[in-house]
Amino acid sequence: MLPTSLIAHPDHAVVWHDNQLYLLDQRELPHTITFIMCNSGAAVATAIRDMVVRGAPAIGVAVAYAVVLAARERLLNTTNDWREHLNEDFALLAAARPTAVNLFWALKRMREFIATLDHVDPLPALLAEAQRIHAEDIAANQTLGALGAALIDTPTAIITHCNAGALATGGYGTALGVVRSAFAAGNIRCVYADETRPWLQGSRLTAWELHESGIPVTVQADVAAASLMARGDVGWVIVGADRIAANGDVCNKIGTYGLAILARHHGVKFMVAAPLSTVDLDTPNGAAIPIEERAADEVLCCGGQRVAPAGVAARNPVFDVTPAALVDYIVTECGVIAQPDAAKLHALYQTAPIAMD
Amino acid sequence: MLPTSLIAHPDHAVVWHDNQLYLLDQRELPHTITFIMCNSGAAVATAIRDMVVRGAPAIGVAVAYAVVLAARERLLNTTNDWREHLNEDFALLAAARPTAVNLFWALKRMREFIATLDHVDPLPALLAEAQRIHAEDIAANQTLGALGAALIDTPTAIITHCNAGALATGGYGTALGVVRSAFAAGNIRCVYADETRPWLQGSRLTAWELHESGIPVTVQADVAAASLMARGDVGWVIVGADRIAANGDVCNKIGTYGLAILARHHGVKFMVAAPLSTVDLDTPNGAAIPIEERAADEVLCCGGQRVAPAGVAARNPVFDVTPAALVDYIVTECGVIAQPDAAKLHALYQTAPIAMD
Repeated sequence: MLPTSLIAHPDHAVVWHDNQLYLLDQRELPHTITFIMCNSGAAVATAIRDMVVRGAPAIGVAVAYAVVLAARERLLNTTNDWREHLNEDFALLAAARPTAVNLFWALKRMREFIATLDHVDPLPALLAEAQRIHAEDIAANQTLGALGAALIDTPTAIITHCNAGALATGGYGTALGVVRSAFAAGNIRCVYADETRPWLQGSRLTAWELHESGIPVTVQADVAAASLMARGDVGWVIVGADRIAANGDVCNKIGTYGLAILARHHGVKFMVAAPLSTVDLDTPNGAAIPIEERAADEVLCCGGQRVAPAGVAARNPVFDVTPAALVDYIVTECGVIAQPDAAKLHALYQTAPIAMD
Repeated sequence: MLPTSLIAHPDHAVVWHDNQLYLLDQRELPHTITFIMCNSGAAVATAIRDMVVRGAPAIGVAVAYAVVLAARERLLNTTNDWREHLNEDFALLAAARPTAVNLFWALKRMREFIATLDHVDPLPALLAEAQRIHAEDIAANQTLGALGAALIDTPTAIITHCNAGALATGGYGTALGVVRSAFAAGNIRCVYADETRPWLQGSRLTAWELHESGIPVTVQADVAAASLMARGDVGWVIVGADRIAANGDVCNKIGTYGLAILARHHGVKFMVAAPLSTVDLDTPNGAAIPIEERAADEVLCCGGQRVAPAGVAARNPVFDVTPAALVDYIVTECGVIAQPDAAKLHALYQTAPIAMD
């Protein structure tokens, strides 16, 4: 059981406690606070696929712990060739969801770390590496939150889409990390949270997280963003990312691309906040990013109720790609890029304190 | 009771039968086919406010019948000054919803018609006028449907938003009237229906209506329109209107404005289909149109379930304004206007077979 102190705080979406991984079940928020206990790599893969845990950085952190759990299982059964058997777990975890690159980034980092191990008992070192990944993610968010907030030089309303908050990361949040820092600086008048159909990350998660943090939040239907911008009191759109390609194209929750077009049309600034682990220099551009299509029922149902008539089809791509040309700023823990392009992203990567690749 | 032949057909959203008005309860579609019987003007006003009947032209038709019902009540109680007492009904009906101008147009037409009456029993004449309004609306939709379809010269996929179909009109539909005509001509490959949060007119009504008519329809989250357009296989966005200002600005369901910006960005043509009764020359431009804001719970709930946490606010404007500059075509029963402006709309108005003003 999780101690009460860890429960019901947005920063505790991914918790390692008493040698198990606990994931705050984001399908049940905001009404029910339930943690799913995972004691195997397979259990974490299922939790990622079923969106118990979601958000690119949070998936990265969860998968790092999943490797620890998987290694523990393998070591119990076969101490000699545990590395070889662990490849099956890597494959299972890699297949959980296709778009967020942090999943693959964390698997790669754990795999490379394992290659360096020669301990009799590798588990303490593996756990320490997963915890380092977790702590680094929180620290990155705090740093990029401050860097992003520094761009907002006057009190304004902002729009955010989906949930790129503490719930979507190791803690603190990316887009909402910027919001937290800017709010502390007195520069956030109100956050308009797009409800973010079909999964309602905005009305269920972002509204909960900001409300818990005392930051004023107003939910709106996704389609209400355009006329809100036309009113003139929104200064920024601030979103997270699931993958940023080498040329600066940004893959994020479906609807982000349209929001970027609307922002440009209205002269609203468009900021993408993400740690360097979301940047994928191996993906040349947005067209090369696999876009997950989830079950049609996510669209055809609403609040657990079927809304469309029987026999009707739905499409449900859950991410889209915003071309770099529509992005005003990419904010990472290693610095801010204005008008991103391949050269600027590559240069930023070289400044990373730890080589990312 | 309504005869079975009138039940469960999208063309029969507003039915006068056996001296009562029957309204297909659009809150319950597509799962339940229920008609609300109205035998007073006040009952129709309530039905409009509560969205039993919705869609600008359907509201216009319903309100014409409402005047018949109200006059019958007044004549029962006071034969001499029934016209004077009827003014209370006119006021009640006028307050039902603020944005769709067809409501005010139909009230004005009925009021002017009443002024010409000197019958001992005015009810048959009043009913005949309401039925004329109803029949004219269907005829207008069939005509503008053919005119709009003629603009689509090659098979294509289209996006529609909200429901501007038979259910939203006296019958046949405006935007979906164009779709019906274009489909018959072989030029509609697929209709993508935006689900249209918060009221889900797309997934509940448009999907039902098109599926019943054998026209291929795919539902999508509203935010999926942008990436669909980027794929390149959508040729047109086709929508209805709740009010068209004298300068060609179009007020329609929230989300239409954003869709128009996205269409322009992708080179997709943007068509507004509406009868002349939706054009309001007394409203100079979109900024002068009152935008209804409905209850926050429409956004904070989904499928009858509360989704957002307690204490969180929502904004819920249910219409927005698309500037004329973003509209490629306005299609009416009296002709098509490309790149609408005040002069073209005014000229079209003059050609109307019946003076509209």
